[in-house]
Amino acid sequence: MAYVHGYSERETQRLYEQAGILEDILHSGTAFSANARVLEAGCGVGAQTRLLMKRSPEAVFTCIDLSEKSLATASRLKAQPEFRRVTFLREDITRLGFAEESFDHVFVCFVLEHLDAPVAALKELKRALRTGGTITVIEGDHGSCFWHPETPESVAAWNGLIAAQRNIGHDPNIGRRLAPLLTGAGFALQTCEPAWLYADRLKPALRDGMVDHIIVPMVQSAEERILADHLVPKPVYEKGIADLSRVDQLDEGTFFYTWFKAVARKP
Amino acid sequence: MAYVHGYSERETQRLYEQAGILEDILHSGTAFSANARVLEAGCGVGAQTRLLMKRSPEAVFTCIDLSEKSLATASRLKAQPEFRRVTFLREDITRLGFAEESFDHVFVCFVLEHLDAPVAALKELKRALRTGGTITVIEGDHGSCFWHPETPESVAAWNGLIAAQRNIGHDPNIGRRLAPLLTGAGFALQTCEPAWLYADRLKPALRDGMVDHIIVPMVQSAEERILADHLVPKPVYEKGIADLSRVDQLDEGTFFYTWFKAVARKP
Repeated sequence: MAYVHGYSERETQRLYEQAGILEDILHSGTAFSANARVLEAGCGVGAQTRLLMKRSPEAVFTCIDLSEKSLATASRLKAQPEFRRVTFLREDITRLGFAEESFDHVFVCFVLEHLDAPVAALKELKRALRTGGTITVIEGDHGSCFWHPETPESVAAWNGLIAAQRNIGHDPNIGRRLAPLLTGAGFALQTCEPAWLYADRLKPALRDGMVDHIIVPMVQSAEERILADHLVPKPVYEKGIADLSRVDQLDEGTFFYTWFKAVARKP
Repeated sequence: MAYVHGYSERETQRLYEQAGILEDILHSGTAFSANARVLEAGCGVGAQTRLLMKRSPEAVFTCIDLSEKSLATASRLKAQPEFRRVTFLREDITRLGFAEESFDHVFVCFVLEHLDAPVAALKELKRALRTGGTITVIEGDHGSCFWHPETPESVAAWNGLIAAQRNIGHDPNIGRRLAPLLTGAGFALQTCEPAWLYADRLKPALRDGMVDHIIVPMVQSAEERILADHLVPKPVYEKGIADLSRVDQLDEGTFFYTWFKAVARKP
Protein backbone atom coordinates (compact mmCIF):
# COMPACT_ATOMS: atom_id res chain seq x y z
CA MET A 1 0.00 0.00 0.00
CA ALA A 2 1.36 3.44 -0.95
CA TYR A 3 1.34 5.95 1.92
CA VAL A 4 1.87 9.51 0.74
CA HIS A 5 3.59 10.66 3.96
CA GLY A 6 6.12 7.80 4.18
CA TYR A 7 7.48 6.17 7.35
CA SER A 8 10.40 8.38 8.48
CA GLU A 9 11.27 9.17 12.10
CA ARG A 10 10.37 12.79 11.42
CA GLU A 11 6.93 11.72 10.23
CA THR A 12 6.47 9.60 13.37
CA GLN A 13 7.36 12.67 15.44
CA ARG A 14 4.87 14.74 13.45
CA LEU A 15 2.10 12.20 14.04
CA TYR A 16 2.67 12.16 17.81
CA GLU A 17 2.80 15.97 18.01
CA GLN A 18 -0.26 16.32 15.77
CA ALA A 19 -2.31 14.01 17.97
CA GLY A 20 -1.58 16.11 21.05
CA ILE A 21 -2.21 19.45 19.34
CA LEU A 22 -5.55 18.29 17.94
CA GLU A 23 -6.71 16.20 20.91
CA ASP A 24 -9.55 18.46 22.03
CA ILE A 25 -10.72 19.13 18.49
CA LEU A 26 -10.81 15.50 17.40
CA HIS A 27 -11.38 13.38 20.52
CA SER A 28 -13.96 15.37 22.47
CA GLY A 29 -17.17 13.38 22.69
CA THR A 30 -15.50 10.02 22.04
CA ALA A 31 -15.58 7.69 25.06
CA PHE A 32 -16.26 3.94 25.21
CA SER A 33 -17.66 2.17 28.26
CA ALA A 34 -15.94 -0.31 30.58
CA ASN A 35 -14.97 -3.59 28.92
CA ALA A 36 -16.14 -2.37 25.52
CA ARG A 37 -14.18 -4.16 22.79
CA VAL A 38 -12.83 -1.39 20.57
CA LEU A 39 -11.08 -1.95 17.26
CA GLU A 40 -8.76 0.90 16.20
CA ALA A 41 -8.32 0.27 12.49
CA GLY A 42 -5.22 1.85 10.97
CA CYS A 43 -3.47 2.74 14.23
CA GLY A 44 -0.15 3.50 12.50
CA VAL A 45 2.48 4.44 15.07
CA GLY A 46 -0.18 4.59 17.81
CA ALA A 47 -0.45 8.39 17.79
CA GLN A 48 -4.21 8.39 18.47
CA THR A 49 -4.15 5.27 20.67
CA ARG A 50 -2.91 7.03 23.80
CA LEU A 51 -5.69 9.65 23.53
CA LEU A 52 -8.35 7.02 22.87
CA MET A 53 -7.29 5.13 26.00
CA LYS A 54 -7.23 8.27 28.13
CA ARG A 55 -10.89 9.01 27.36
CA SER A 56 -12.03 5.39 27.71
CA PRO A 57 -10.06 4.25 30.76
CA GLU A 58 -11.74 0.84 31.04
CA ALA A 59 -12.26 -0.15 27.42
CA VAL A 60 -10.16 -2.84 25.77
CA PHE A 61 -8.40 -1.96 22.53
CA THR A 62 -7.29 -3.99 19.54
CA CYS A 63 -5.19 -1.75 17.34
CA ILE A 64 -4.33 -2.91 13.85
CA ASP A 65 -2.23 -1.68 10.97
CA LEU A 66 -0.82 -3.07 7.74
CA SER A 67 2.65 -1.56 8.17
CA GLU A 68 5.16 -3.70 10.12
CA LYS A 69 7.34 -0.62 10.53
CA SER A 70 4.57 1.51 12.06
CA LEU A 71 3.58 -1.36 14.37
CA ALA A 72 7.16 -1.74 15.55
CA THR A 73 7.12 1.95 16.51
CA ALA A 74 3.69 1.63 18.11
CA SER A 75 4.85 -1.37 20.14
CA ARG A 76 7.39 0.81 21.97
CA LEU A 77 4.34 2.32 23.70
CA LYS A 78 3.74 -1.06 25.37
CA ALA A 79 6.51 -0.11 27.85
CA GLN A 80 3.93 2.22 29.44
CA PRO A 81 1.78 0.32 31.98
CA GLU A 82 -1.58 1.71 30.78
CA PHE A 83 -0.96 0.01 27.44
CA ARG A 84 -1.79 -3.32 29.10
CA ARG A 85 -5.29 -2.79 27.66
CA VAL A 86 -3.97 -2.60 24.10
CA THR A 87 -3.11 -5.35 21.64
CA PHE A 88 -1.24 -4.26 18.52
CA LEU A 89 -1.77 -6.60 15.57
CA ARG A 90 -0.79 -6.71 11.94
CA GLU A 91 -4.02 -6.93 9.94
CA ASP A 92 -5.17 -5.94 6.47
CA ILE A 93 -8.22 -3.66 6.79
CA THR A 94 -9.60 -5.12 3.56
CA ARG A 95 -9.43 -8.75 4.83
CA LEU A 96 -9.59 -8.84 8.62
CA GLY A 97 -8.72 -11.97 10.52
CA PHE A 98 -11.54 -11.44 13.04
CA ALA A 99 -14.82 -13.32 13.27
CA GLU A 100 -18.10 -11.57 12.55
CA GLU A 101 -19.31 -9.24 15.31
CA SER A 102 -16.03 -9.36 17.27
CA PHE A 103 -16.14 -5.73 18.40
CA ASP A 104 -18.53 -3.30 20.10
CA HIS A 105 -17.00 -0.21 18.51
CA VAL A 106 -14.67 0.66 15.66
CA PHE A 107 -12.48 3.77 15.59
CA VAL A 108 -10.87 5.02 12.36
CA CYS A 109 -8.77 8.19 12.19
CA PHE A 110 -6.91 9.51 9.09
CA VAL A 111 -7.14 6.15 7.33
CA LEU A 112 -9.80 6.22 4.59
CA GLU A 113 -7.90 9.04 2.84
CA HIS A 114 -5.04 6.58 2.27
CA LEU A 115 -7.04 3.65 0.92
CA ASP A 116 -7.68 2.52 -2.65
CA ALA A 117 -11.22 1.36 -1.80
CA PRO A 118 -12.61 3.05 1.32
CA VAL A 119 -16.15 1.68 1.01
CA ALA A 120 -14.87 -1.91 0.78
CA ALA A 121 -12.81 -1.31 3.94
CA LEU A 122 -15.83 0.12 5.76
CA LYS A 123 -17.88 -2.95 4.76
CA GLU A 124 -15.17 -5.26 6.12
CA LEU A 125 -15.08 -3.26 9.38
CA LYS A 126 -18.85 -3.54 9.57
CA ARG A 127 -18.55 -7.32 9.32
CA ALA A 128 -16.29 -7.38 12.39
CA LEU A 129 -18.62 -5.03 14.32
CA ARG A 130 -21.56 -6.32 16.34
CA THR A 131 -25.07 -5.38 15.25
CA GLY A 132 -25.97 -2.13 17.00
CA GLY A 133 -22.31 -1.29 17.51
CA THR A 134 -20.88 2.03 16.36
CA ILE A 135 -18.11 3.18 14.08
CA THR A 136 -16.44 6.56 14.67
CA VAL A 137 -14.53 7.97 11.73
CA ILE A 138 -12.35 11.10 11.59
CA GLU A 139 -10.95 12.24 8.25
CA GLY A 140 -9.44 15.51 7.06
CA ASP A 141 -10.34 17.47 3.96
CA HIS A 142 -7.33 19.16 2.41
CA GLY A 143 -9.63 21.20 0.17
CA SER A 144 -11.02 22.91 3.28
CA CYS A 145 -7.72 24.55 4.13
CA PHE A 146 -6.91 28.25 3.71
CA TRP A 147 -4.68 30.84 5.28
CA HIS A 148 -3.66 34.48 5.25
CA PRO A 149 -1.44 35.81 3.82
CA GLU A 150 -2.00 33.56 0.82
CA THR A 151 0.64 33.54 -1.92
CA PRO A 152 0.46 31.68 -5.25
CA GLU A 153 3.50 29.65 -4.16
CA SER A 154 2.04 28.57 -0.81
CA VAL A 155 -1.14 27.48 -2.59
CA ALA A 156 0.95 25.60 -5.20
CA ALA A 157 2.97 23.76 -2.52
CA TRP A 158 -0.20 22.73 -0.69
CA ASN A 159 -1.86 21.66 -3.95
CA GLY A 160 1.29 19.64 -4.64
CA LEU A 161 0.50 17.46 -1.63
CA ILE A 162 -3.10 17.07 -2.81
CA ALA A 163 -1.93 16.08 -6.30
CA ALA A 164 0.68 13.64 -4.93
CA GLN A 165 -1.98 11.88 -2.88
CA ARG A 166 -4.39 11.78 -5.84
CA ASN A 167 -1.62 10.40 -8.06
CA ILE A 168 -1.47 7.29 -5.90
CA GLY A 169 -5.24 6.87 -6.18
CA HIS A 170 -6.27 8.30 -2.79
CA ASP A 171 -8.60 11.16 -1.86
CA PRO A 172 -7.12 13.93 0.32
CA ASN A 173 -10.52 15.72 0.24
CA ILE A 174 -12.38 12.71 1.60
CA GLY A 175 -13.84 14.55 4.62
CA ARG A 176 -16.70 15.97 2.59
CA ARG A 177 -17.58 12.42 1.45
CA LEU A 178 -17.57 10.84 4.88
CA ALA A 179 -21.35 10.82 5.31
CA PRO A 180 -22.09 9.23 1.91
CA LEU A 181 -19.22 6.72 2.30
CA LEU A 182 -20.65 5.44 5.57
CA THR A 183 -24.15 5.30 4.15
CA GLY A 184 -22.81 3.57 1.05
CA ALA A 185 -21.19 0.89 3.20
CA GLY A 186 -24.54 0.14 4.83
CA PHE A 187 -24.12 1.98 8.13
CA ALA A 188 -26.91 4.09 9.66
CA LEU A 189 -25.38 7.55 9.93
CA GLN A 190 -25.93 9.13 13.38
CA THR A 191 -23.92 12.35 13.17
CA CYS A 192 -21.40 13.92 10.82
CA GLU A 193 -19.95 17.30 11.75
CA PRO A 194 -16.93 19.43 10.95
CA ALA A 195 -14.23 19.45 13.63
CA TRP A 196 -12.41 22.64 12.72
CA LEU A 197 -9.32 24.55 13.69
CA TYR A 198 -8.96 28.29 13.23
CA ALA A 199 -6.05 30.21 14.68
CA ASP A 200 -4.93 33.81 14.55
CA ARG A 201 -2.77 36.03 16.81
CA LEU A 202 -5.19 35.40 19.69
CA LYS A 203 -4.16 31.69 19.66
CA PRO A 204 -0.42 31.73 18.92
CA ALA A 205 0.31 28.25 20.33
CA LEU A 206 -2.42 26.62 18.25
CA ARG A 207 -1.33 28.55 15.16
CA ASP A 208 2.28 27.50 15.67
CA GLY A 209 1.22 23.90 16.28
CA MET A 210 -0.96 23.68 13.20
CA VAL A 211 1.31 25.51 10.76
CA ASP A 212 4.81 24.50 11.86
CA HIS A 213 4.21 21.11 13.47
CA ILE A 214 1.43 19.70 11.31
CA ILE A 215 0.92 21.36 7.91
CA VAL A 216 4.48 22.23 6.86
CA PRO A 217 6.00 18.87 7.88
CA MET A 218 2.99 17.10 6.31
CA VAL A 219 3.70 18.72 2.93
CA GLN A 220 7.42 18.03 3.38
CA SER A 221 6.72 14.35 4.09
CA ALA A 222 5.58 14.13 0.45
CA GLU A 223 8.35 16.40 -0.87
CA GLU A 224 10.16 13.72 -2.87
CA ARG A 225 6.98 12.68 -4.61
CA ILE A 226 5.93 16.28 -5.27
CA LEU A 227 9.30 17.16 -6.84
CA ALA A 228 10.01 13.84 -8.58
CA ASP A 229 6.58 13.84 -10.23
CA HIS A 230 7.12 17.53 -11.23
CA LEU A 231 3.86 18.47 -9.57
CA VAL A 232 5.38 21.79 -8.48
CA PRO A 233 8.63 23.35 -9.79
CA LYS A 234 11.30 23.24 -7.08
CA PRO A 235 11.77 27.02 -6.62
CA VAL A 236 7.99 27.48 -6.37
CA TYR A 237 7.77 24.63 -3.85
CA GLU A 238 10.57 26.10 -1.75
CA LYS A 239 9.07 29.59 -1.67
CA GLY A 240 5.68 28.00 -0.96
CA ILE A 241 7.01 26.19 2.11
CA ALA A 242 8.69 29.39 3.33
CA ASP A 243 5.46 31.36 2.78
CA LEU A 244 3.40 28.75 4.64
CA SER A 245 5.83 28.87 7.60
CA ARG A 246 5.62 32.65 7.61
CA VAL A 247 1.85 32.49 8.34
CA ASP A 248 2.82 31.62 11.88
CA GLN A 249 5.43 34.36 12.20
CA LEU A 250 3.30 37.33 11.19
CA ASP A 251 0.92 39.20 13.47
CA GLU A 252 -1.71 39.08 10.72
CA GLY A 253 -1.34 35.36 9.95
CA THR A 254 -4.49 33.22 10.12
CA PHE A 255 -5.06 29.53 9.38
CA PHE A 256 -8.18 27.38 8.91
CA TYR A 257 -8.64 23.64 8.39
CA THR A 258 -11.52 21.31 9.02
CA TRP A 259 -11.70 17.60 9.62
CA PHE A 260 -15.00 15.71 9.66
CA LYS A 261 -16.07 13.39 12.42
CA ALA A 262 -18.90 10.93 11.93
CA VAL A 263 -20.57 8.30 14.09
CA ALA A 264 -22.65 5.57 12.46
CA ARG A 265 -24.35 2.40 13.69
CA LYS A 266 -24.43 -1.11 12.26
CA PRO A 267 -28.15 -1.71 11.70
CA MET B 1 -20.12 51.96 -5.31
CA ALA B 2 -20.18 48.73 -7.31
CA TYR B 3 -22.14 45.91 -5.63
CA VAL B 4 -21.50 42.53 -7.20
CA HIS B 5 -24.95 41.15 -6.41
CA GLY B 6 -26.99 44.09 -7.77
CA TYR B 7 -30.30 45.40 -6.43
CA SER B 8 -33.02 43.23 -8.01
CA GLU B 9 -36.20 42.09 -6.29
CA ARG B 10 -34.95 38.50 -6.51
CA GLU B 11 -31.76 39.55 -4.69
CA THR B 12 -33.83 41.30 -1.99
CA GLN B 13 -35.80 38.07 -1.58
CA ARG B 14 -32.52 36.11 -1.35
CA LEU B 15 -31.19 38.42 1.34
CA TYR B 16 -34.33 38.09 3.48
CA GLU B 17 -34.38 34.27 3.12
CA GLN B 18 -30.63 34.02 3.78
CA ALA B 19 -30.93 35.98 7.02
CA GLY B 20 -33.59 33.60 8.32
CA ILE B 21 -31.76 30.43 7.27
CA LEU B 22 -28.50 31.58 8.88
CA GLU B 23 -29.97 33.26 11.96
CA ASP B 24 -28.71 30.76 14.55
CA ILE B 25 -25.31 30.42 12.92
CA LEU B 26 -24.62 34.14 12.66
CA HIS B 27 -26.61 35.87 15.41
CA SER B 28 -26.18 33.58 18.40
CA GLY B 29 -24.22 35.37 21.11
CA THR B 30 -25.04 38.84 19.82
CA ALA B 31 -27.29 40.85 22.18
CA PHE B 32 -27.11 44.50 23.18
CA SER B 33 -28.45 45.85 26.46
CA ALA B 34 -31.43 48.15 27.05
CA ASN B 35 -31.04 51.63 25.57
CA ALA B 36 -27.69 50.73 24.00
CA ARG B 37 -27.15 52.89 20.93
CA VAL B 38 -26.32 50.47 18.12
CA LEU B 39 -25.14 51.47 14.65
CA GLU B 40 -25.83 48.88 11.95
CA ALA B 41 -23.48 49.92 9.18
CA GLY B 42 -24.43 48.69 5.71
CA CYS B 43 -27.96 47.52 6.58
CA GLY B 44 -28.94 47.13 2.90
CA VAL B 45 -32.56 46.04 2.63
CA GLY B 46 -32.72 45.46 6.41
CA ALA B 47 -32.35 41.67 6.16
CA GLN B 48 -30.27 41.39 9.36
CA THR B 49 -32.05 44.27 11.15
CA ARG B 50 -35.09 42.24 12.20
CA LEU B 51 -32.88 39.54 13.73
CA LEU B 52 -30.68 42.08 15.51
CA MET B 53 -33.78 43.67 17.07
CA LYS B 54 -35.23 40.34 18.12
CA ARG B 55 -32.13 39.49 20.18
CA SER B 56 -31.77 43.00 21.64
CA PRO B 57 -35.38 43.90 22.38
CA GLU B 58 -34.59 47.18 24.18
CA ALA B 59 -31.64 48.52 22.22
CA VAL B 60 -31.99 51.49 19.87
CA PHE B 61 -30.82 51.04 16.29
CA THR B 62 -29.49 53.44 13.69
CA CYS B 63 -29.22 51.54 10.41
CA ILE B 64 -27.33 53.13 7.56
CA ASP B 65 -26.63 52.32 3.93
CA LEU B 66 -25.32 54.13 0.88
CA SER B 67 -27.95 52.75 -1.51
CA GLU B 68 -31.17 54.78 -1.77
CA LYS B 69 -32.81 51.77 -3.42
CA SER B 70 -31.94 49.38 -0.59
CA LEU B 71 -33.06 51.92 2.00
CA ALA B 72 -36.41 52.36 0.23
CA THR B 73 -36.89 48.58 0.50
CA ALA B 74 -35.74 48.57 4.13
CA SER B 75 -38.13 51.38 4.99
CA ARG B 76 -41.11 49.14 4.14
CA LEU B 77 -40.22 47.31 7.36
CA LYS B 78 -41.17 50.46 9.30
CA ALA B 79 -44.80 49.41 8.88
CA GLN B 80 -44.10 46.78 11.58
CA PRO B 81 -44.56 48.30 15.06
CA GLU B 82 -41.34 46.87 16.54
CA PHE B 83 -39.39 48.94 14.00
CA ARG B 84 -40.15 52.04 16.14
CA ARG B 85 -36.69 51.48 17.63
CA VAL B 86 -35.00 51.74 14.22
CA THR B 87 -33.95 54.79 12.24
CA PHE B 88 -32.91 54.11 8.64
CA LEU B 89 -30.51 56.75 7.29
CA ARG B 90 -28.53 57.27 4.12
CA GLU B 91 -24.89 57.56 5.12
CA ASP B 92 -21.53 56.90 3.50
CA ILE B 93 -19.57 54.45 5.67
CA THR B 94 -16.34 56.18 4.66
CA ARG B 95 -17.54 59.65 5.80
CA LEU B 96 -20.19 59.31 8.49
CA GLY B 97 -22.32 62.29 9.48
CA PHE B 98 -22.19 61.32 13.18
CA ALA B 99 -20.21 63.05 15.93
CA GLU B 100 -17.34 61.20 17.63
CA GLU B 101 -18.40 58.53 20.13
CA SER B 102 -22.09 58.60 19.08
CA PHE B 103 -22.66 54.85 19.54
CA ASP B 104 -22.15 52.13 22.16
CA HIS B 105 -21.91 49.31 19.62
CA VAL B 106 -21.40 48.87 15.90
CA PHE B 107 -22.70 45.88 13.92
CA VAL B 108 -21.41 45.08 10.43
CA CYS B 109 -22.57 42.06 8.43
CA PHE B 110 -21.54 41.16 4.84
CA VAL B 111 -20.25 44.70 4.19
CA LEU B 112 -16.43 44.80 4.24
CA GLU B 113 -16.34 42.27 1.37
CA HIS B 114 -18.00 44.92 -0.83
CA LEU B 115 -15.78 47.91 0.03
CA ASP B 116 -12.79 49.37 -1.80
CA ALA B 117 -11.04 50.25 1.48
CA PRO B 118 -12.29 48.15 4.42
CA VAL B 119 -9.70 49.38 6.94
CA ALA B 120 -10.57 53.03 6.24
CA ALA B 121 -14.26 52.20 6.81
CA LEU B 122 -13.44 50.42 10.10
CA LYS B 123 -11.46 53.48 11.25
CA GLU B 124 -14.39 55.76 10.45
CA LEU B 125 -16.75 53.43 12.37
CA LYS B 126 -14.29 53.52 15.29
CA ARG B 127 -14.49 57.30 15.31
CA ALA B 128 -18.28 57.14 15.75
CA LEU B 129 -17.98 54.47 18.49
CA ARG B 130 -17.48 55.40 22.13
CA THR B 131 -14.25 54.42 23.86
CA GLY B 132 -14.76 50.96 25.35
CA GLY B 133 -17.60 50.25 22.92
CA THR B 134 -17.59 47.14 20.73
CA ILE B 135 -17.78 46.38 17.05
CA THR B 136 -19.21 43.04 15.87
CA VAL B 137 -18.30 42.05 12.32
CA ILE B 138 -19.55 39.06 10.30
CA GLU B 139 -18.04 38.36 6.89
CA GLY B 140 -18.05 35.33 4.63
CA ASP B 141 -15.09 33.66 2.97
CA HIS B 142 -15.94 32.31 -0.47
CA GLY B 143 -12.64 30.41 -0.52
CA SER B 144 -13.88 28.30 2.41
CA CYS B 145 -16.66 26.73 0.39
CA PHE B 146 -16.76 23.15 -0.89
CA TRP B 147 -19.29 20.51 -1.73
CA HIS B 148 -19.80 16.95 -2.88
CA PRO B 149 -20.22 15.89 -5.62
CA GLU B 150 -17.77 18.41 -6.98
CA THR B 151 -17.58 18.86 -10.76
CA PRO B 152 -15.13 21.07 -12.69
CA GLU B 153 -18.09 23.12 -13.93
CA SER B 154 -19.59 23.76 -10.48
CA VAL B 155 -16.16 24.89 -9.26
CA ALA B 156 -15.81 27.13 -12.34
CA ALA B 157 -19.22 28.76 -11.80
CA TRP B 158 -18.42 29.44 -8.13
CA ASN B 159 -14.97 30.77 -9.01
CA GLY B 160 -16.72 33.01 -11.55
CA LEU B 161 -18.47 34.80 -8.70
CA ILE B 162 -15.16 35.14 -6.84
CA ALA B 163 -13.47 36.56 -9.95
CA ALA B 164 -16.35 38.97 -10.63
CA GLN B 165 -16.11 40.37 -7.12
CA ARG B 166 -12.32 40.68 -7.37
CA ASN B 167 -12.65 42.42 -10.73
CA ILE B 168 -14.47 45.29 -9.05
CA GLY B 169 -11.71 45.54 -6.44
CA HIS B 170 -13.39 43.70 -3.58
CA ASP B 171 -12.35 40.64 -1.56
CA PRO B 172 -14.82 37.73 -1.46
CA ASN B 173 -12.34 35.81 0.76
CA ILE B 174 -12.20 38.56 3.36
CA GLY B 175 -13.30 36.35 6.28
CA ARG B 176 -9.79 34.98 6.83
CA ARG B 177 -8.54 38.60 7.07
CA LEU B 178 -11.11 39.80 9.57
CA ALA B 179 -8.82 39.59 12.63
CA PRO B 180 -5.93 41.50 11.01
CA LEU B 181 -8.29 44.09 9.47
CA LEU B 182 -9.75 44.95 12.88
CA THR B 183 -6.32 45.06 14.48
CA GLY B 184 -5.06 47.19 11.58
CA ALA B 185 -7.86 49.68 12.16
CA GLY B 186 -6.78 50.09 15.79
CA PHE B 187 -9.39 47.92 17.51
CA ALA B 188 -8.48 45.54 20.35
CA LEU B 189 -9.57 42.13 19.06
CA GLN B 190 -11.63 40.17 21.61
CA THR B 191 -12.71 37.09 19.64
CA CYS B 192 -12.67 35.91 16.05
CA GLU B 193 -14.18 32.51 15.24
CA PRO B 194 -15.57 30.62 12.28
CA ALA B 195 -19.35 30.46 12.12
CA TRP B 196 -19.80 27.48 9.83
CA LEU B 197 -22.51 25.61 8.03
CA TYR B 198 -22.26 21.96 7.04
CA ALA B 199 -25.22 20.06 5.71
CA ASP B 200 -25.73 16.54 4.43
CA ARG B 201 -28.73 14.21 4.15
CA LEU B 202 -29.21 14.41 7.93
CA LYS B 203 -30.06 18.13 7.57
CA PRO B 204 -32.08 18.35 4.36
CA ALA B 205 -33.77 21.68 5.16
CA LEU B 206 -30.46 23.39 5.91
CA ARG B 207 -28.88 21.88 2.80
CA ASP B 208 -31.78 23.04 0.64
CA GLY B 209 -31.65 26.50 2.22
CA MET B 210 -27.92 26.93 1.74
CA VAL B 211 -27.63 25.49 -1.76
CA ASP B 212 -30.87 26.55 -3.44
CA HIS B 213 -31.79 29.70 -1.55
CA ILE B 214 -28.38 31.21 -0.84
CA ILE B 215 -25.49 29.90 -2.96
CA VAL B 216 -27.14 29.31 -6.35
CA PRO B 217 -29.06 32.62 -6.39
CA MET B 218 -25.95 34.42 -5.08
CA VAL B 219 -23.91 33.20 -8.07
CA GLN B 220 -26.82 34.02 -10.38
CA SER B 221 -27.02 37.57 -9.00
CA ALA B 222 -23.59 38.12 -10.61
CA GLU B 223 -24.43 36.16 -13.77
CA GLU B 224 -24.35 39.13 -16.13
CA ARG B 225 -20.93 40.19 -14.91
CA ILE B 226 -19.58 36.62 -14.98
CA LEU B 227 -20.71 36.11 -18.58
CA ALA B 228 -20.09 39.63 -19.92
CA ASP B 229 -16.53 39.63 -18.54
CA HIS B 230 -15.99 36.12 -20.04
CA LEU B 231 -14.92 34.82 -16.62
CA VAL B 232 -16.62 31.49 -17.37
CA PRO B 233 -17.81 30.24 -20.79
CA LYS B 234 -21.62 30.19 -20.89
CA PRO B 235 -22.09 26.40 -21.33
CA VAL B 236 -19.67 25.74 -18.45
CA TYR B 237 -21.48 28.28 -16.29
CA GLU B 238 -24.86 26.72 -17.05
CA LYS B 239 -23.73 23.19 -16.30
CA GLY B 240 -22.01 24.52 -13.17
CA ILE B 241 -25.23 26.04 -11.85
CA ALA B 242 -27.12 22.81 -12.61
CA ASP B 243 -24.41 20.76 -10.85
CA LEU B 244 -24.47 23.04 -7.80
CA SER B 245 -28.27 22.72 -7.57
CA ARG B 246 -27.97 18.96 -7.82
CA VAL B 247 -25.92 18.85 -4.57
CA ASP B 248 -29.19 19.38 -2.78
CA GLN B 249 -31.09 16.75 -4.75
CA LEU B 250 -28.77 13.80 -4.21
CA ASP B 251 -28.69 11.59 -1.14
CA GLU B 252 -24.90 11.87 -1.09
CA GLY B 253 -24.77 15.68 -1.48
CA THR B 254 -22.83 17.63 1.16
CA PHE B 255 -22.08 21.34 1.49
CA PHE B 256 -19.71 23.38 3.67
CA TYR B 257 -19.18 27.13 4.05
CA THR B 258 -17.80 29.24 6.83
CA TRP B 259 -18.28 32.87 7.77
CA PHE B 260 -16.13 34.55 10.40
CA LYS B 261 -17.51 36.53 13.32
CA ALA B 262 -15.31 38.88 15.32
CA VAL B 263 -15.86 41.17 18.28
CA ALA B 264 -13.39 43.96 19.00
CA ARG B 265 -13.26 46.88 21.41
CA LYS B 266 -12.31 50.53 20.88
CA PRO B 267 -9.38 50.99 23.28
